[in-house]
Amino acid sequence: MDRRKALKIAGGGGLAAILASGTAPAYSQGKKEWRLQQTWAKTAPGLGTGGNVFAEFVNKATNGAINIRVYSGGEIVPPFQTMDAVSNGTIQMGFGYVTYWAGQIPAMNYLGTLPFGLTVQEHNAWFMYGGGQQLAEKLYAKLGVQFMLGGNTITQPAGWYNKEIKTLADYKGLKMRIGGLGAKVVQALGGTPVSMPLGEVPQAMQSGAIDAIEFVGPLNDLGAGLHKVAKYYYWPGWLEPSGPYDFFINEKAWGTLSPSEKEIFRAGAALALQATISEFIAKNAAAYNQMVGELKVQVRQIPDEAVRGIADVAWKVIEAEAKDADSKAVLASVMKFRREILPYMRVSEFDFMRVRNLVKFG
Amino acid sequence: MDRRKALKIAGGGGLAAILASGTAPAYSQGKKEWRLQQTWAKTAPGLGTGGNVFAEFVNKATNGAINIRVYSGGEIVPPFQTMDAVSNGTIQMGFGYVTYWAGQIPAMNYLGTLPFGLTVQEHNAWFMYGGGQQLAEKLYAKLGVQFMLGGNTITQPAGWYNKEIKTLADYKGLKMRIGGLGAKVVQALGGTPVSMPLGEVPQAMQSGAIDAIEFVGPLNDLGAGLHKVAKYYYWPGWLEPSGPYDFFINEKAWGTLSPSEKEIFRAGAALALQATISEFIAKNAAAYNQMVGELKVQVRQIPDEAVRGIADVAWKVIEAEAKDADSKAVLASVMKFRREILPYMRVSEFDFMRVRNLVKFG
Repeated sequence: MDRRKALKIAGGGGLAAILASGTAPAYSQGKKEWRLQQTWAKTAPGLGTGGNVFAEFVNKATNGAINIRVYSGGEIVPPFQTMDAVSNGTIQMGFGYVTYWAGQIPAMNYLGTLPFGLTVQEHNAWFMYGGGQQLAEKLYAKLGVQFMLGGNTITQPAGWYNKEIKTLADYKGLKMRIGGLGAKVVQALGGTPVSMPLGEVPQAMQSGAIDAIEFVGPLNDLGAGLHKVAKYYYWPGWLEPSGPYDFFINEKAWGTLSPSEKEIFRAGAALALQATISEFIAKNAAAYNQMVGELKVQVRQIPDEAVRGIADVAWKVIEAEAKDADSKAVLASVMKFRREILPYMRVSEFDFMRVRNLVKFG
Repeated sequence: MDRRKALKIAGGGGLAAILASGTAPAYSQGKKEWRLQQTWAKTAPGLGTGGNVFAEFVNKATNGAINIRVYSGGEIVPPFQTMDAVSNGTIQMGFGYVTYWAGQIPAMNYLGTLPFGLTVQEHNAWFMYGGGQQLAEKLYAKLGVQFMLGGNTITQPAGWYNKEIKTLADYKGLKMRIGGLGAKVVQALGGTPVSMPLGEVPQAMQSGAIDAIEFVGPLNDLGAGLHKVAKYYYWPGWLEPSGPYDFFINEKAWGTLSPSEKEIFRAGAALALQATISEFIAKNAAAYNQMVGELKVQVRQIPDEAVRGIADVAWKVIEAEAKDADSKAVLASVMKFRREILPYMRVSEFDFMRVRNLVKFG
C-alpha cells in the first residue's frame, strides 16, 4: 500500500494519525503486520519460548495473512512498559508474566500465583473449569487488553541463599531479592525484601548487600550465574508453585480479528502453554542434574516445621493484602477450587509420585 | 460434485474406486468433509471431550473449509475397529486411547502408559522434548496414520475391589478385569486377568465372577456405576499414572492438507489435550468428593510394602514383555527420560505437593 492510498483511506486523519495509531492493523500487501514484545529476551530459554511458538504458529496457520513479529523486552519499549504499550496501542500484543502487572491491578498477584496454592496443571484447570479465565478477562479488560494464558514456569524453587534456613527464625534479618506477595511474606517473617535489577544481583550477593534471591528455576538460574554467588539452592517451592505467563492483545487490535483468527490465536496460546511446560520439565531437570553433579551446588530442604510456620504467616499476609474487591474475588475463587480438588489430587497424582519415590523400578 | 464429474475425475477407477477410497477428501461446495470416529461415545464426559474440542476448533479456524463431523464409537464401525477404518481410509480420522492398538503394534503398550512411569505433564514433556513424538510417528506410520497426542485421563486409580488388598499375597487368586501390561502384572502377582465388555462388569462383580476392575477415574467410574457393585476404591494409581489419547489421521488424507491446515490440526490437538486434562482434574475431583461424601464409598490405600512388591514384579514383567525392537526402543526412551527428570520432579512439584498436605493454609 503506497502513501497516497494510505492517506486516502485514513481520510481527515492523514498519515500521522495512522502512524500514531498502532491499534489500526498495518497492511503490507494485504497482510496484518503485528508486533509482539516479550518482557524477556526472545531467545531466553523457557521464558522466551511461548512468544516464538505462538507467532510461528499464527504466521503459518493464517498462511501469512497475519504476520506477528516477536521483539525482545526493550526493543520497542522497556520490558515492564510492555503492558502500557499494548494498552495504548503502540504495539498490538505482549507476552509476559501475570504478576508483573500487579502495580496496575493488585489482583494480578492473586491471579498469577499463590504461595501454597495450585500446581501448574491445577492452575490450568482453574483457568478453564474454575472460573479463572473469566476473572482474568475482567482484570485485563481494565487495561484495555484481551488475556490468554500462554506459559508457565512450573514449580519454582525456594531460591538461592547464602545463609542456611533451619528454622523460621532464620528468616529474621534475611535480605532477599523478591517481589509480589512473596516480598510481603518475607517481610512478615522478619526479613527485608529488596527490589533490584537481576544484573546487580551477583555483585549484591557477593558483597552481602543481599543474602538470598528467588528467580525462576534451574535452567534460568544457572544462566543468570546464581550458582556462582550463592551457597545453597533451597526447596520446596512454597512461594510460586505455578507461574503463569500471559499473552495480552490490544482490545481494538483484537476486534479487527475475524472469528476464525481469534480461534487460531487461542489455539496458539494453548500450544505455547504446552511447549513451555514441557520445555521447563525437560530442561530444568537437565540443569538440576548439572547443578548437583558437575557444579556441586549444595541443595537444601527447608525443614517441614519451618514450612508450617511460613504457611501460617503466608496465609495471614495473603488474606490481609487482598484489600480490593477484585483481589478478594480472585483469592476466594482460587481457594474454593483448591479446597475442591485437594482431596482428589492427594490420592491420585500426589500419591503416585510419593510411591514412585519409594519403589525400586528399572 | 455430481456423479458424472466424479467419474471423470476418477478416470479409469470409476465411482466404485472413489467410494472405496475414503482417503480422497469429499467435497461439498468446495469444502473438505471429514469424518472422525471416537472409540467412545461423543458425549462421554472427559473421554469424549477431545474429539469435540478438536473438530469445533478446526471447523471454526478454517472458516468451515474443513468440516470435521464427530461420530461415537460404533456409529460407523465398532469402537475397536476405528484404527482399521482410518488405516484403510473408510474414515479420515479417529480419536482413541494409545494402548488400544497394542494388538496391532505391541509397542503401543509402552507408548501409552507405563506402570510406575511418568505423570501426565512428564509424559507430555517426553512426547515434546524426550523423543516421544518421533517414536510415536514411527509406530503410527506402520498403521498408515499420522499421530497427534490429544488428551489424557490423568493418573488413574488402582481400581475398584470387592476384596481388601493388605499385602502382596492378596493379589493371589484375584480375578480382575484389566488389560494391557497391567493384566500381565496381575497375572505375575498370582491373579487372573479377565477381559469382558464394561456392560457385563456389574453383573460379574455382583456374582463374584470377578473381584476387581480398573476403569478410568471417579468421573467415569461413577457413571459406569462401579460404586454400586464394588466395596472399595483403591489408590495409589501405580498402574496408569498417565493415560494419553491419540488422534490418528489416514496418511493420504493427511497429505491432502496444506501446511497451514496441518498446523491448525496440531494446535487443535494441543487444545484437546489441555481441555481434557483440565476437565479431568476438575470433574474427577468433584466426583471423588461425591464418592467419599454422599455415596460413602470406602476409599482404601494399598499399603506401601505391597506397592514395593508390585513394583518389583511389574518391572520384571515390563522388561520381559518388551520383546520386539519397537517396544524395547520406547521402553528405553521412557526410562531414560524418567531417570533424567525424577531427581528434579522430586524436589520441585512433588515436594511442593507434599508440604501443601502438611500445612494449614486458608
